[in-house]
Amino acid sequence: MSQRPSGRAADEGRPVSIELGTARHAEGSALIRVGGTEVLCTASIENRVPPFLRNKGQGWITAEYGMLPRATHIRGNREATKGKQSGRTQEIQRLIGRSLRACVNLRKLGEKTITLDCDVLNADGGTRCASITGAWVALAIALRKINAGSALTSQIAAVSCGLTKAGAVLDLDYIEDSNAQADSNFVLTSTGGIVEIQGTAEEAPFEESEFLELLRLAKLGTANLFEAQNRILESL
Amino acid sequence: MSQRPSGRAADEGRPVSIELGTARHAEGSALIRVGGTEVLCTASIENRVPPFLRNKGQGWITAEYGMLPRATHIRGNREATKGKQSGRTQEIQRLIGRSLRACVNLRKLGEKTITLDCDVLNADGGTRCASITGAWVALAIALRKINAGSALTSQIAAVSCGLTKAGAVLDLDYIEDSNAQADSNFVLTSTGGIVEIQGTAEEAPFEESEFLELLRLAKLGTANLFEAQNRILESL
Amino acid sequence: MSQRPSGRAADEGRPVSIELGTARHAEGSALIRVGGTEVLCTASIENRVPPFLRNKGQGWITAEYGMLPRATHIRGNREATKGKQSGRTQEIQRLIGRSLRACVNLRKLGEKTITLDCDVLNADGGTRCASITGAWVALAIALRKINAGSALTSQIAAVSCGLTKAGAVLDLDYIEDSNAQADSNFVLTSTGGIVEIQGTAEEAPFEESEFLELLRLAKLGTANLFEAQNRILESL
Amino acid sequence: MSQRPSGRAADEGRPVSIELGTARHAEGSALIRVGGTEVLCTASIENRVPPFLRNKGQGWITAEYGMLPRATHIRGNREATKGKQSGRTQEIQRLIGRSLRACVNLRKLGEKTITLDCDVLNADGGTRCASITGAWVALAIALRKINAGSALTSQIAAVSCGLTKAGAVLDLDYIEDSNAQADSNFVLTSTGGIVEIQGTAEEAPFEESEFLELLRLAKLGTANLFEAQNRILESL
Amino acid sequence: MSQRPSGRAADEGRPVSIELGTARHAEGSALIRVGGTEVLCTASIENRVPPFLRNKGQGWITAEYGMLPRATHIRGNREATKGKQSGRTQEIQRLIGRSLRACVNLRKLGEKTITLDCDVLNADGGTRCASITGAWVALAIALRKINAGSALTSQIAAVSCGLTKAGAVLDLDYIEDSNAQADSNFVLTSTGGIVEIQGTAEEAPFEESEFLELLRLAKLGTANLFEAQNRILESL
Amino acid sequence: MSQRPSGRAADEGRPVSIELGTARHAEGSALIRVGGTEVLCTASIENRVPPFLRNKGQGWITAEYGMLPRATHIRGNREATKGKQSGRTQEIQRLIGRSLRACVNLRKLGEKTITLDCDVLNADGGTRCASITGAWVALAIALRKINAGSALTSQIAAVSCGLTKAGAVLDLDYIEDSNAQADSNFVLTSTGGIVEIQGTAEEAPFEESEFLELLRLAKLGTANLFEAQNRILESL
Repeated sequence: MSQRPSGRAADEGRPVSIELGTARHAEGSALIRVGGTEVLCTASIENRVPPFLRNKGQGWITAEYGMLPRATHIRGNREATKGKQSGRTQEIQRLIGRSLRACVNLRKLGEKTITLDCDVLNADGGTRCASITGAWVALAIALRKINAGSALTSQIAAVSCGLTKAGAVLDLDYIEDSNAQADSNFVLTSTGGIVEIQGTAEEAPFEESEFLELLRLAKLGTANLFEAQNRILESL
Repeated sequence: MSQRPSGRAADEGRPVSIELGTARHAEGSALIRVGGTEVLCTASIENRVPPFLRNKGQGWITAEYGMLPRATHIRGNREATKGKQSGRTQEIQRLIGRSLRACVNLRKLGEKTITLDCDVLNADGGTRCASITGAWVALAIALRKINAGSALTSQIAAVSCGLTKAGAVLDLDYIEDSNAQADSNFVLTSTGGIVEIQGTAEEAPFEESEFLELLRLAKLGTANLFEAQNRILESL
Repeated sequence: MSQRPSGRAADEGRPVSIELGTARHAEGSALIRVGGTEVLCTASIENRVPPFLRNKGQGWITAEYGMLPRATHIRGNREATKGKQSGRTQEIQRLIGRSLRACVNLRKLGEKTITLDCDVLNADGGTRCASITGAWVALAIALRKINAGSALTSQIAAVSCGLTKAGAVLDLDYIEDSNAQADSNFVLTSTGGIVEIQGTAEEAPFEESEFLELLRLAKLGTANLFEAQNRILESL
Repeated sequence: MSQRPSGRAADEGRPVSIELGTARHAEGSALIRVGGTEVLCTASIENRVPPFLRNKGQGWITAEYGMLPRATHIRGNREATKGKQSGRTQEIQRLIGRSLRACVNLRKLGEKTITLDCDVLNADGGTRCASITGAWVALAIALRKINAGSALTSQIAAVSCGLTKAGAVLDLDYIEDSNAQADSNFVLTSTGGIVEIQGTAEEAPFEESEFLELLRLAKLGTANLFEAQNRILESL
Repeated sequence: MSQRPSGRAADEGRPVSIELGTARHAEGSALIRVGGTEVLCTASIENRVPPFLRNKGQGWITAEYGMLPRATHIRGNREATKGKQSGRTQEIQRLIGRSLRACVNLRKLGEKTITLDCDVLNADGGTRCASITGAWVALAIALRKINAGSALTSQIAAVSCGLTKAGAVLDLDYIEDSNAQADSNFVLTSTGGIVEIQGTAEEAPFEESEFLELLRLAKLGTANLFEAQNRILESL
Repeated sequence: MSQRPSGRAADEGRPVSIELGTARHAEGSALIRVGGTEVLCTASIENRVPPFLRNKGQGWITAEYGMLPRATHIRGNREATKGKQSGRTQEIQRLIGRSLRACVNLRKLGEKTITLDCDVLNADGGTRCASITGAWVALAIALRKINAGSALTSQIAAVSCGLTKAGAVLDLDYIEDSNAQADSNFVLTSTGGIVEIQGTAEEAPFEESEFLELLRLAKLGTANLFEAQNRILESL
């Protein structure tokens, strides 16, 4: 079994930092860095709900995801110029939205919509996981701002794990991600619950035991993320 | 714990049938019915590969998914009329494509593209799983037609399981799906490998043990699907 | 004068069959097969009218047409993926909509919209004609379901005729259609009235006498179609 | 039977005038006025053919149609702003293209594409017919300019006739068109051949005899149009 | 310093003519010709305002710009077919709209929207300037028609000037425009005020003194345009 | 004459800072802050030119502009979601592209394209000017990286000036911009040349003398910007 490209131990995540207030107009904002991945997450509150929820006495949480054209090694086309979001973008923003909805009591929120925008400034693997982890912080801040902190029912964070030449490893960076035999994104709660699992075997199917090892690593990895989230929120 | 709406046992899937040749021009076609869900899957072979694969000596497998406007209780808008595919559609067709790619040796396929079209004629829950199960059959037939059967490296099928008021159950229909606390789609190989897992807790996070129970049910459920696939292929 | 590719007599239409109920959720559905052409027609009723008809005390009939990507010899691009309907598709669905509106008393319908979706599963020429003939059946069933059978003012069916190397012939299949000097689609009522005529001379103009011969054949051909429509409706 | 709104006799067309050279850059251009309808038709020649005709030793004729937003009583939305052409526009431009293709020997044209743009400056009924009649002139001039006059195999013109309260009438204006029981567009050759017929019974089906009367009127009406075309071409 | 391609003096504009009533349905219309450039400008009045102005007791002026495909030497693609307006088109129509808004008292207009459509029939440089000059006439006529002439607070016209091989020159035609070192569009009022300036140095930056010379020429040039506008309006 | 909302003197610009390297993958990147406006500018080099420049021995400079949805007080719609860029966005990115092209010798660049992406993280007025000023820095760095520094022929910066209740003022922030009688964006070179002027009188026309005062202020303002650009480049 070979070493990880970064030299990290199999169960070693990348350094995480979260900065608040970068987006000065947003009700909540968190600039999260996980290794070389950097995502600006903002929470925007509006006093309206989508048509399908009108007069139902509940709110809505939704998410949009984007990548700046030069967040990547090679410049990608701007989706606004192409005139549509890619399937990948839509898949990711649906995942972020579902994950965040799972930790809010929408009835307590009232007839409000909170939109979480996750814009990737730099990409080095794991952008969807960083987005979820950062968006949770932006959401928590926005809810406090409208005195709706109690609508937040759980704390979530996300990390990807995968099967690589170095075995099962935690928190894949771009090089590992491109070469993984299989990888899985885990969105977990701070109390050990599973919110979302997206496991994909691009190269070869994986075994149940391998999957359970990935889940074990994810639990380790999210523990650090929960700590980073708590640290920054306590600093407020 | 209450009964399932359909009266089925927790580990009881819906009746499955597969019919070949419905799409008379396609290199392979399978009309699959899983309970009230009915999907027409076709495999189309073209002697070209997408630009990013040119001159790499390998082929490509991709998928597209659609729902006839009146496959559902209430007529949905036709995506061709709206001018774009929904995020849900794109998420599903990406899942189908990845899953099928995982069971083909693309080098053995040669510079060909096989497109799997999965069009839902009737929807009653589990349309993405039925699409994968049926598309595998259409793909197998198309590969035989071009004497490339050996490019098929594994047999896959898919089923959804979920946590409902009746506990952990196999093969959710529409009513169960709409009310499930959490559900998960499993794409498995006939030798027990995991190809894709998409687990979602819309209502409340689920526990590792619950997840493992869903996986156990999925293995039971796919066994029946593999049998149905084999039966129809042997009839050729 | 040579033989028709199919060996049919000049005034011989293809075998027709109509099956009801394929689309289980629709208010009315008819799966029509005319030779190798197969179209699933559904009628969907909604309790609303388009903006330009609001508060005018009348209903609306409209149609949408689509072809599954592999309904044809060579896979066609999915219109939902391309992001727009082709001119051909729009021309056809406008024809279907106009034809069906001509046989309904929209005031008797009340403020309802009935959408006729015609989706081609297999194409072998004459898809627009088969769509109209099948859509009429789906419409008739849907109107009965809401006790508005009396809003149906006439019975229509459609057939294409053309000038080929075998002379003026009835009900062109794909090969004939591709090579016809001129062809014409006729939408006729069971009492001999003309609802729509679309005559096109792609190769060379045709004479009035030739046109009248095509119309004569169309009357013969629709007689069989009316019979097939009546047979299936009487079976209800 | 009542009078026509315009006071015209049943078989009386509107005054026609054709002006050349309005579009100064085009290889051919004709500004046609038929009563209050005014269409600028241009023919543009390009030394390329569409992909499906490459290396087949033949050319192509195609058409595009548009209406200036304020060609009508009430301003219509600009299609370029809406981001798509309406079904009506597409239906019309396909008709124009097919009609003009029918009077050109595409082999004699060589590997060239001629695009006929028909832009309606003022609309008062019959815009598609005026477009075809004017486009034929623009096309004839453009073909002369490249010494390919012999590629023009026939002369065509178009007129609409309909069944109104004043009976069967020739060359409907907007008021008549809006209230007609049925109307039909005829594209005819100067030698009496039929190139295109589009007959539509919006209100009530029409009889074969009525249709033949419309065709008789159309022959009368196009005679005047052919004369106007010839007069202007002879003036060159 | 060389001569201008047209032989015009440096401060000599092109001949201008304005014709009224070309668009017979519009509340106001002006067909303006400036040398070889010809633009049909129409003003359309609607009794509604855009959402952001509702219940504010004021009106709105907006503009749309288009070029017929063959207004140019080489046929351009139709924007309605491409499905979007180019950046150039949007830039121009925003300029026209802003310019015309600057000469209307929107409160006096009342809750109405006036849309100015500027469609270029022939292009030979300066189409945006001709559009503004012509649109002002169409607007003035439309305002008179609804007895709101007093809402018109100033008279505007536009001209382009540029630095060419012949030095600073007035009213560039297409050849000059394509080769200018720098050019500037000036929208001026009849009392010498500046409404819009768009100065662009494509080749090399220009000096303040050069810019002032362009402005001096623009004042000369618009004087002629104001005269042409007045002449035609007085003829009413 | 009243005070400026910010308390700044009429000829006092906002504090400027430029940070390099924020976009870690880009050939050049500059994060520019002008007061509360913050724009991330990246330069991306590709070894290709657009079709219209192929085999002409020269390169191309182009720009794209975007605003993160929550860069503003109220969340704006994401252009990628809406499926098109607004007219404002296109107008701005065309301005940025033209301005930067004016300071590069495209022949010296060789057959390369440099795309300048300007993404607004926070908006408080003057985003297009900050984009140009920052993009020039990103461009300079990227040119150095490929040893093409000599292709850079001039140094540019941009600032907006306007007529407000406090008279003619330098560097408008959002509040001033929203209420200005007229404003003008100036793109100037470090040697006093004019590259672009966009002057707009939304409320009332302005006089030549007023315009010259705005130009005088712009020269003052850009002097500071040139200094900031030089300081950061010298630090390399």
